[in-house]
This record gives sequence, structure tokens and C-alpha cells, in this order.
Amino acid sequence: MSTLSEHIDNAFDLSYLNFPKCPPTDIKTIGILGGGTAGYLAALALKKYHPEVEVTVIESSKIPVIGVGESTTTEIVPFLHRGLEIDPAEFFREVEPTLKFGIRFDWGCPGDYKFNFSFFAGHQYESYYYENDIKNSNWPSVLMNENKIPVIRNKNGTLTSFLASIPFSYHIDNKNLIRFLNKEVKSRGIDILDAEVHEVKLDERGYVASLESKEGHSLSYDLYIDCSGFRSKILGQALKTEFTPFTDTLVTDRALTFDMPNKDVVDCYTSVITMNNGWCWKIPMRTEDHYGYVFSSKFCDEETALAEARARFGHFEKYKMVEFRSGRHTQAWVKNVFSLGNSYGFIEPLESTAIQTAVHSINVLCRLMPKTLDDQISITGINNEIAVTWDTFRWFVGMHYKFNKKLDTPFWKHCREKTNIGHAQTIVNLFNQRPPLSAGNFGSNSQFTATEALVFNSYSYDTLIFGQKEVYKPLAAPEMSKEEYFGKLKSYQELTSRSLSLFELFKGDHLFEDEILEQLFNDTDTWIMEADV
Amino acid sequence: MSTLSEHIDNAFDLSYLNFPKCPPTDIKTIGILGGGTAGYLAALALKKYHPEVEVTVIESSKIPVIGVGESTTTEIVPFLHRGLEIDPAEFFREVEPTLKFGIRFDWGCPGDYKFNFSFFAGHQYESYYYENDIKNSNWPSVLMNENKIPVIRNKNGTLTSFLASIPFSYHIDNKNLIRFLNKEVKSRGIDILDAEVHEVKLDERGYVASLESKEGHSLSYDLYIDCSGFRSKILGQALKTEFTPFTDTLVTDRALTFDMPNKDVVDCYTSVITMNNGWCWKIPMRTEDHYGYVFSSKFCDEETALAEARARFGHFEKYKMVEFRSGRHTQAWVKNVFSLGNSYGFIEPLESTAIQTAVHSINVLCRLMPKTLDDQISITGINNEIAVTWDTFRWFVGMHYKFNKKLDTPFWKHCREKTNIGHAQTIVNLFNQRPPLSAGNFGSNSQFTATEALVFNSYSYDTLIFGQKEVYKPLAAPEMSKEEYFGKLKSYQELTSRSLSLFELFKGDHLFEDEILEQLFNDTDTWIMEADV
Repeated sequence: MSTLSEHIDNAFDLSYLNFPKCPPTDIKTIGILGGGTAGYLAALALKKYHPEVEVTVIESSKIPVIGVGESTTTEIVPFLHRGLEIDPAEFFREVEPTLKFGIRFDWGCPGDYKFNFSFFAGHQYESYYYENDIKNSNWPSVLMNENKIPVIRNKNGTLTSFLASIPFSYHIDNKNLIRFLNKEVKSRGIDILDAEVHEVKLDERGYVASLESKEGHSLSYDLYIDCSGFRSKILGQALKTEFTPFTDTLVTDRALTFDMPNKDVVDCYTSVITMNNGWCWKIPMRTEDHYGYVFSSKFCDEETALAEARARFGHFEKYKMVEFRSGRHTQAWVKNVFSLGNSYGFIEPLESTAIQTAVHSINVLCRLMPKTLDDQISITGINNEIAVTWDTFRWFVGMHYKFNKKLDTPFWKHCREKTNIGHAQTIVNLFNQRPPLSAGNFGSNSQFTATEALVFNSYSYDTLIFGQKEVYKPLAAPEMSKEEYFGKLKSYQELTSRSLSLFELFKGDHLFEDEILEQLFNDTDTWIMEADV
Repeated sequence: MSTLSEHIDNAFDLSYLNFPKCPPTDIKTIGILGGGTAGYLAALALKKYHPEVEVTVIESSKIPVIGVGESTTTEIVPFLHRGLEIDPAEFFREVEPTLKFGIRFDWGCPGDYKFNFSFFAGHQYESYYYENDIKNSNWPSVLMNENKIPVIRNKNGTLTSFLASIPFSYHIDNKNLIRFLNKEVKSRGIDILDAEVHEVKLDERGYVASLESKEGHSLSYDLYIDCSGFRSKILGQALKTEFTPFTDTLVTDRALTFDMPNKDVVDCYTSVITMNNGWCWKIPMRTEDHYGYVFSSKFCDEETALAEARARFGHFEKYKMVEFRSGRHTQAWVKNVFSLGNSYGFIEPLESTAIQTAVHSINVLCRLMPKTLDDQISITGINNEIAVTWDTFRWFVGMHYKFNKKLDTPFWKHCREKTNIGHAQTIVNLFNQRPPLSAGNFGSNSQFTATEALVFNSYSYDTLIFGQKEVYKPLAAPEMSKEEYFGKLKSYQELTSRSLSLFELFKGDHLFEDEILEQLFNDTDTWIMEADV
């Protein structure tokens, strides 16, 4: 016989309402074409969230891996270590990422002007009002000004880390990441098949019937995930899915990549530097910096780009010329094919969206996985969510081009005049109606709130608008007094003066020896543990 | 000189990001036309959230108040007592509301079949699977089956109240409420002007220039709020704003209202009873029940309705015939006029949306209040949010008509065949694709999630679809075993057997004497304190 308190516990036990985040599917087998970052991450996520499905990765050892520094966004950290349960210590030892606290933009206004895009809320409104500049709008931004990280050396020599409270992401050498993920995929019992697919066979309904390899395999699965990169071998080439170019928003189509030694300075941010015909990334690795001059072949030939890069950053011998196209296929899921990463689409290197969008697609797939291949409602849900997200990225990245007033070259004049930023224009208007957007009072059905639900929140839009000074009328005085504002700034500066550089952190092996890593991933109230995965 | 810990506190103090929920406006004066529930609630809310504005209520003592029992939804409780800071004890003493734990529907399937719409999450999926009926899907529903409330009498005679954990709303006699609100408005220093407006003067741009009263006043304000009820004196009559009727969804247009003695039974729910040509509400007051037979004049004349009501509920002498029209104006804010309550639109008495939509409009207005009358972005935000919300209500109420299989009269055949439920059809399809909706895995850009953000959440749609048995294929076995399910049911029944009726609660004055009210409104972890106001 139960007691009264047991009956009460029973009546208020609503634990059954915690429905599975990724309800199981009847799809039995999935073949992933392509063993790059997208393919491996998809395989690991499916193994974790859909263990009921048998997953195979098909890759060819003959197709080389592009080794380039990748800049990522904060979502990757909880995704890797909580979602995919990748051991942080192992990851730091083998992949050797560096920490990124934001993007430092050499961008927006003429001359020496720079602004920081940190991953932390700030009082940009107050900064803009009192300093006409947002570079001091929070502690992470002041740290970026000095190239320091939020780890303080105390007077007795011990360290205090604030990494658990200040979000960061990784700069990763793609070669290291792929090697690491390959090992993880194998160790978790996912089959990797070395095969070069030369033909995609369709059945009479236009569904993929099999992948035929040069080695003589005929490979059939219920669902095919196309991670074949820009070739888009299944979604694009075989299924001939319509492609929407983003060219009226993003005119760049080339990247000139090269490395330079770092002279014992490891930046704690990605640099984004305005160039005559585009812009250049600088992604710090442990021992060198990876650069990429993104330009438009319509405005500049390869030689001109090369000459400009060498004049600006010093001489380098080795370089690569990478072509890309900006745009996306209209649908990510067509018939029995789902596509993610570059095979679905590519925005532009700016704002480091490549891995971010791949992770987003993987999350959407796992969460909305159709019950069967006929489950059109789930499939439509997947396609809508991915399409809307990509378009939001497109407009957001477009805002950088439209509002960058650093240079007056033909390329930049063209961008300022012609860039289509779609519904981001509404957001700029909303901002100017009542800044800042992060005050958030535009109504739950407004254009802005719909966008805010996606990756770039109101704080990001505020940063970009204040940072590029697209402020059309004088701001009203903020509630925070001038004294209070500069008092805060003094604190940021005081803390920064005691902070380590990233080079010092790595050189001293402090992540491991001072238990910084352990605190970061084991405490329950860190930003990583509180993120939704 | 500051200490290190002060600097750290400064760096992580983000309190300035708590922007005001209702940013102040430059609008200086507001005239509210109409001293009904909508007008008074708007005046009180403006006084609270926009103290910078001078508010006047214009009402005529010559226009009588409609005294009818009103059923409300749970939002009203935190809105009144936390939002408007109305003292609960005073409110209970003077307005004498009864408590509503949901709606009991005599509806859906032929015969004696009933289902409960409680305000509490439940395991309807499991109930439907194991019992082919959702009447036992949570404790509040089992309480409603027995007409009991979640207050238990312990063996030693003391009471244990669960009102803090189980949401409820009020049944209110409109006369009492208006008298109470009138007193509150006056005591808070808001001007009430007794004047009968006979003319609305417009200026050359079509903006309202003044309200002219029979008493000779010429009243001018920056903004006019039209709370004149169905007459829609400013928005409809003067501004001639377009009106969209909901007649292809809701064909009813009359209500026959009457009272009956309650014989010492005070129901803890609103009853909604299928009738030959519509449906009848039964709203319990402390000493009598208020009824309203809602019918369509296209299918039934007044005499037939009267005869049917008397045959069903017993003889009554006094009654009223109320006409209404279902629909809304296309815009709530036009020029310098904002409209709310019946003057903006009316859905249908079903689901008690009248006060709920008025409160919603008031909240939207206070939150998105335009900075000036030219602030088109805020005005568009207000209009969109209100329109989308109303349309969602329209489709939701429409679902009741389309899916009620209780009777086969011409009226109900018509409703089943012809009712337009708009995008709610997509939601029913989504449900049947993967029930229940509350499992919530349709993607953040799906039709459903957009709707869910509004008032009727996934649990409400599940209730309506399971309750009316619009389940098109057999359910898969739930994770919860049969034993576990019936074990829970036993607990609900055991608790219910010890529970009080509402009549016992009021008769014993337990709300006051046993400190139930005090616990409910003073504890910080009650559903009322946790609600967003």
C-alpha cells in the first residue's frame, strides 16, 4: 500500500513528458559519402543519437584532404565534448586547437579603426555613446585589444581561469581534426569503406539505388548522406537538385591561402582584414598563422591578389588558390538523399560558418529524423529549417560587405552599392528605430525575433551595426552614467593587465598542469555545460 | 582602490542588459473610450507600465454593464495579482470569483462521452493507448471527473493545498469585476470622465482630432484607445477600418443567456455542452450557474433555442438574447487609434478567449508601445502580433466545430463539412504524422512551432485532437507500461477521494482561514510567481 506522499509524488511526476530529443527512426541503413569533417561529424552524431541505424562512411584514400586552418564558432565546443562525448584532454593533445574569443575586424571605418566581435554580451550602446567606439564594451573585447585571455596570474603565481564563464571556440588545423575524427569514428565501431564512387545509380522513381565504385562495389542503403564537398556528387550531380547562387549578396569566389610563422605570438582571435579586392583571414595555430585572401575574380586576378598579400603581410613562397561558389541547393533532403556541408551549399569564409552550418544540419537531421522515407512532414521540416538558417547567414554575412567603409576601391564601392542583404535590411531599420536590438522589444512575430531564434542573436547584430557605425541618428543618453561606464572599463583594464597571453598558456602547459581543462569540462555551471546540445 | 574581486564583479556584472520590458514613450496623453473590463484593465496596465503617460477613461453612466458570468484562462491570475498588483484577498472578498481548473467538454463523440481540458500537462498519449480515452490523463482531470479540487483534508482535519502547483483561472461575475476595477482605477489616480461620446472628429489626415460628448466636452488626446465594445465607435465607425468576418470558421452569432440555482454544487470547471444548434456554457458562480446557449441564427430561431435549453436544463423565466459577430478588424492600431476587446474583434465564447485576448492586446501594447505616433515599426509589430494571435485562436476554436461528432443535426453536419480551420489542419496532420505534438520535434521553422509560441501550446492541441478522437492510425506502444500507467491512476484516485469540493472550500472560508490564499500568492515557487507577466 502506498503512502500519501507516494501518491503525491506520483501525481506530480511529469518525467514522462521528457520525450526523446531524437525519436528513433525505421530507416535501417545510412551510407555517408565523404570522409571529411562533415561526413565524420555526421557519422559520430548518428551513432550517438540514432544508435538504431547502421551507418557506413564511404571515402577514398585517393582524394586528398585540404589542410587549412579552420575558424569555428562556440557551438562546436559543447557539440564535440558533450554531444559527441569527445574527451577534451585527448582532443587538446591530438588536435592542438588554439582558443578563439571572437573575431577582430580590421573593418568598418577608414584608417586604423578596428572592432571586436566577442562571444560575450556587452554594453555596446554605452560604449558607442561615451566613446563613439565599441572596442571597450566588455572584458573579452578589452582582452582582445591586448591579445590576452581570461586567465589571470595571481600574486602568488597561481592561475585563476575564467574560461568557464567566457565562451570561446577553436582554431583548428583541418588535417589534425580529420585524423582525430577518423580515429574516433573507427573506435566507435562505425564502418569506413575505402572506395571511390564513380557512379550514382538511380531507380525508376529517381531515388538512389546504389553507389558504384571503381573498386567494383555496388553499395545500397536506405538513406544516402552526401558529404562529398563542392562536387555535390549525389544531391547536385546525380539528382540535379536546383542550386540558388548567393552572388548578388556575395561576389567573392577565390581564396589565396598561405602560412606565416607566428613569432611566439598566438592571437586569441581570428583576424579579418579588409583588402583591396576582398578581405584576408588570419587564423592562429600553435606555431604558425594560416592566412586566406578571399577575393572576387571579377575584380582582381590571381597575380594581383598574390602581390597585394605579399606586400601587406611579407613574402611567402608556398600558397594555394582555392575556388568556391557561394550558394545553396534549394533542398537539403531530396528523395532518399540528405546533403550537408559544402555539398549542400557554402556561404563565404567570413564569420566562420562552414563547420557551424554543418553542425546545424547534423543537429536538425538527428532531431527531426523522419520515421520513414515517406515522412514528408519531417522532411519538409528539415528542409525549411536548414534553408531559413542558411539564408539568415547569407544576409548576415552580406551586412559586412554592404557596410564596410574601410576602403574606396572599385570592389568595395561595388559592395556598398550592390550588396543584397535581404531581410537584414529590416533588422538594420529596426535597430535604428530603437537601438539596441538586444533591448528586444519588437514583438514575437516581428522579422527580427524570427531571425534571433537562429544563430546570430540580437547581440551579434548590434555588434555588427555599431561596429560598422550604421547608426543613423544620435543615441539617447543611457541609464549608465559616464562615471559608472569608465569605472567598469578600469576594471576590464586592471584584469587584463594581469592576464596571460595564449602563447603563455600553451607554453606553460597550464591547461593540463593547472587543471584549467578539468575545471572547464567538469564543473556543472560552465557555459559549456549550460549550452543546449 | 578596488580589490581584485571587485574588478571581477564589475567584469561579470551584466545587470545593465536587463533592458526595460516596457520602454517609455513620448506619447503624453491617452484617452480610453469605454469603462468595461477591457478599458479598465488597459487603464490599470498603462498606469503600471507607462507611468509617464497621462491616462483618462471616458465612460457613460448611461450605458449599462452586461452582467454575465465570464470564464477566463490562467493568464489572468498572474496578470491581475502580479502584473497589476491587485490584492488577492480583497479581490476574493469583493469579486467572489470561483476557481476553474479547466473545461469539461460534453463533446467529441456520441453518447455520454466527455473529455476534460485541464490546465496541466498530462500523459494523454498513454491514456489514449491504454483506455482509448483521455479522461484520466492527469490528476486535475481525475479531479474534474469527480468535481473535486486539489485541496486535501488530512486525517487530523487540517488541509493541504496543491493550488500553488496546479494552474487555475477564475469564473467571474462581470458586474462584480467591473465594480471592483472601477474602484481600483479611481484609487490609483486615473481620471474617469462621465461623458457620452456622440461624435468622433477627424482631422485632415484622418487622425482623430477629438471626441465630442453630448454633455458638451471636446476631448483630445495623443492616442485614443477604443474599448467601446461591439460598436467599435472609433476604429470601426469613425475610421472605417476593414473588418474580416470569421464566418467560414464560426457560424454562431447568438447567445441565449440565463441563470439557474446551483443546489450547493459549485463546479470546478466550465462546462461546454453540445446542443442541437450549437453549444451551451455553464459557468458556476458561488450561488448560481450562468448558462449561455450559443447558436447560429442560420440554423435555429430564438424560440427553438429557448425551448431546447428549457427542455435540457429545466425551466427558467428570465433570459437575454445577445447578438455577436465573429471576426476582427484587419489592424488594431490605425493612425492615432488602438483598439482592444470587442471593438477590435470577437472570436466566439468557446475556450473563453474574450478576456484572454484583451489581456494579450494590453500586454502587446505596453511592451511594444511606439516611441511616437510615427514609429511605424513598433505599430507594425503590434498589429502583426495581435492579428496572428487572433487568427490562431480562430483556427483553434474552429477545430472544436469541425471535429465534434456528438450529434448529427443539420448544424453539426454543416460544421463538420464546412468549417475552415486554416493552418490548424497542418497541425492535425503533424499530430497524425508523429503523435503527440507535445513530443515537439517538428523543427523550429515548422508551422506548429510558430503557433506553439502563442497561447495554446502543444499540450492543448494534443488534448483537443485526442479528446475528439481525431487519431487516424493506431498508436505505437508507449514507453510507460500498463502497470505503471494504472499505478499512477490509482494515485490520482486515492488523492481525489481525499479532496474537497469547491463548495466545501468556500463554505468553510478555508481560503482565508487556512491561509491557502497566503501560501498561493506569497510563496516564490508557485505557478503564479513563475509565470511571465
